[in-house]
Amino acid sequence: MEIKEEITKRASKITEIVQEYLPKEENFQKTVLEAMNYSILAGGKRIRPMLMKATFDLFGGKSSAIKPFMAAIEMIHTYSLVHDDLPAMDNDEYRRGKKTTHAQFGEAMGILAGDALLNYAFETATLAFEEEPTNSNIGKALRVLAVKAGVFGMVGGQVVDVESEKKPDEKVSREKLDFIYRLKTGALIEASMMIGAILADASDEEVTKIENVASKIGLAFQIQDDVLDVVSSFEELGKPIGSDEKNNKPTYVTFEGIDKSKEDVLKLTNEAIELLHGFDKEDKFLEQLFMYLVYRKN
Amino acid sequence: MEIKEEITKRASKITEIVQEYLPKEENFQKTVLEAMNYSILAGGKRIRPMLMKATFDLFGGKSSAIKPFMAAIEMIHTYSLVHDDLPAMDNDEYRRGKKTTHAQFGEAMGILAGDALLNYAFETATLAFEEEPTNSNIGKALRVLAVKAGVFGMVGGQVVDVESEKKPDEKVSREKLDFIYRLKTGALIEASMMIGAILADASDEEVTKIENVASKIGLAFQIQDDVLDVVSSFEELGKPIGSDEKNNKPTYVTFEGIDKSKEDVLKLTNEAIELLHGFDKEDKFLEQLFMYLVYRKN
Repeated sequence: MEIKEEITKRASKITEIVQEYLPKEENFQKTVLEAMNYSILAGGKRIRPMLMKATFDLFGGKSSAIKPFMAAIEMIHTYSLVHDDLPAMDNDEYRRGKKTTHAQFGEAMGILAGDALLNYAFETATLAFEEEPTNSNIGKALRVLAVKAGVFGMVGGQVVDVESEKKPDEKVSREKLDFIYRLKTGALIEASMMIGAILADASDEEVTKIENVASKIGLAFQIQDDVLDVVSSFEELGKPIGSDEKNNKPTYVTFEGIDKSKEDVLKLTNEAIELLHGFDKEDKFLEQLFMYLVYRKN
Repeated sequence: MEIKEEITKRASKITEIVQEYLPKEENFQKTVLEAMNYSILAGGKRIRPMLMKATFDLFGGKSSAIKPFMAAIEMIHTYSLVHDDLPAMDNDEYRRGKKTTHAQFGEAMGILAGDALLNYAFETATLAFEEEPTNSNIGKALRVLAVKAGVFGMVGGQVVDVESEKKPDEKVSREKLDFIYRLKTGALIEASMMIGAILADASDEEVTKIENVASKIGLAFQIQDDVLDVVSSFEELGKPIGSDEKNNKPTYVTFEGIDKSKEDVLKLTNEAIELLHGFDKEDKFLEQLFMYLVYRKN
């Protein structure tokens, strides 16, 4: 099967899994339940749960805990988008061609739906204990989820990004840009792959190596995003080209130039795949997924 | 020792415990770390961790997991206040005589500090696994924390409360008022006491009984709040009397009248204490704490 087809198939399967865990839209708090489901079903490539499952499979995982964690990581990713879009933050009315949550349900409901989704991620992940109450990997996975999503992970990156945008006259240093990239997007990619490995009972040493792989591939994705913003045509990318430059937003390309940026995407991806080969596993899907994600056109 | 003195002593001790878990205010995301610490150290009676610890003691608990969970429940309570105060929600500039988090740090930072605190509660609670990786009570306690804080708990109550306030012309039914009381405040009181019992290795049956006790006492607190709003002098309560009525907000007193409301506080508290006696324990602090909290003057 073509890799693209395989990825599409897996993304639909993940959406089904996420849907299994979504709340019924009933009772007095119906509106927020609708807003939660609306946000999570508004689209998305399901990259994080896909990476989690692919890593889990790489290590031959068998635990049923993987499903609630796949749903949980997508819920956390979704809540972060819902809050990012709020008027006090990026103030976006549309995402993926659909109204953002607060544009559709009002600002108060946007805040509360985000809170509810973040919390619901932990509600969902802790369901794993009901089937395997003595599986200590679940506790380890939960801790990774919480730390990587929080103030020393994704939220921390988001804070620095927001603060930088609110002070456009202060030049963002290269060090600060690296910090934002590592935390805002990188941390959740790391969590995805680490949790996949942990739930498959990988050793601590293997989990640390997987964190390193994820960190490299997370950075490669983001540099590729910056490259695409400069070189893509509007049709390919679906958003105005050069939008980062127009927003006066410094990117990896601003610091390193387009050629060096492309080289670094290649270098980071090769390093990540090299590290994967070190595990000496037969499953090649994760490697193909990396190549596909990094060399996508939009 | 006088009960009031004992409670004050315990509250200070809890603040110290919470402080042990608070993040250092350093690195690029310093602002949000400051905002988190500002919010949680702005005051508060620490009732939830106090109830948790008192229930834990009642069942003779010994696990070190109690400390991170005490800190976690206070973080969740605090995040809910930070988000409640936001301009799109209650739009409050002051709380307990201090500027609210968004008034002090800006609206974006108010949203992000709330997100960070909610997430940090789970980061803190999952620390318990590091000392006791195979203690399955920790998983049970985490699940209770997540469920009671979420859309079928506190957030659910908050949503319905906010929606009712935005539609002041639609009369709130008695059924809806009960729903708000049960979830918005009740759920976290239930979580506090249930987690105390779970971590002390109480049986499932005992945990269910404790949930019932907490539910009664949580409702008694809230009715007493409504009573105080009507009967207290400004000096005693520290806020304008009759503020609920002025805000056209229906309360328990609106439905039941002042005398029946007072009777119900007494009835619920007696029932809760009766149920406690059923456990046949020597420790009387929890019972005294109930009496103190219910018959407080402010």
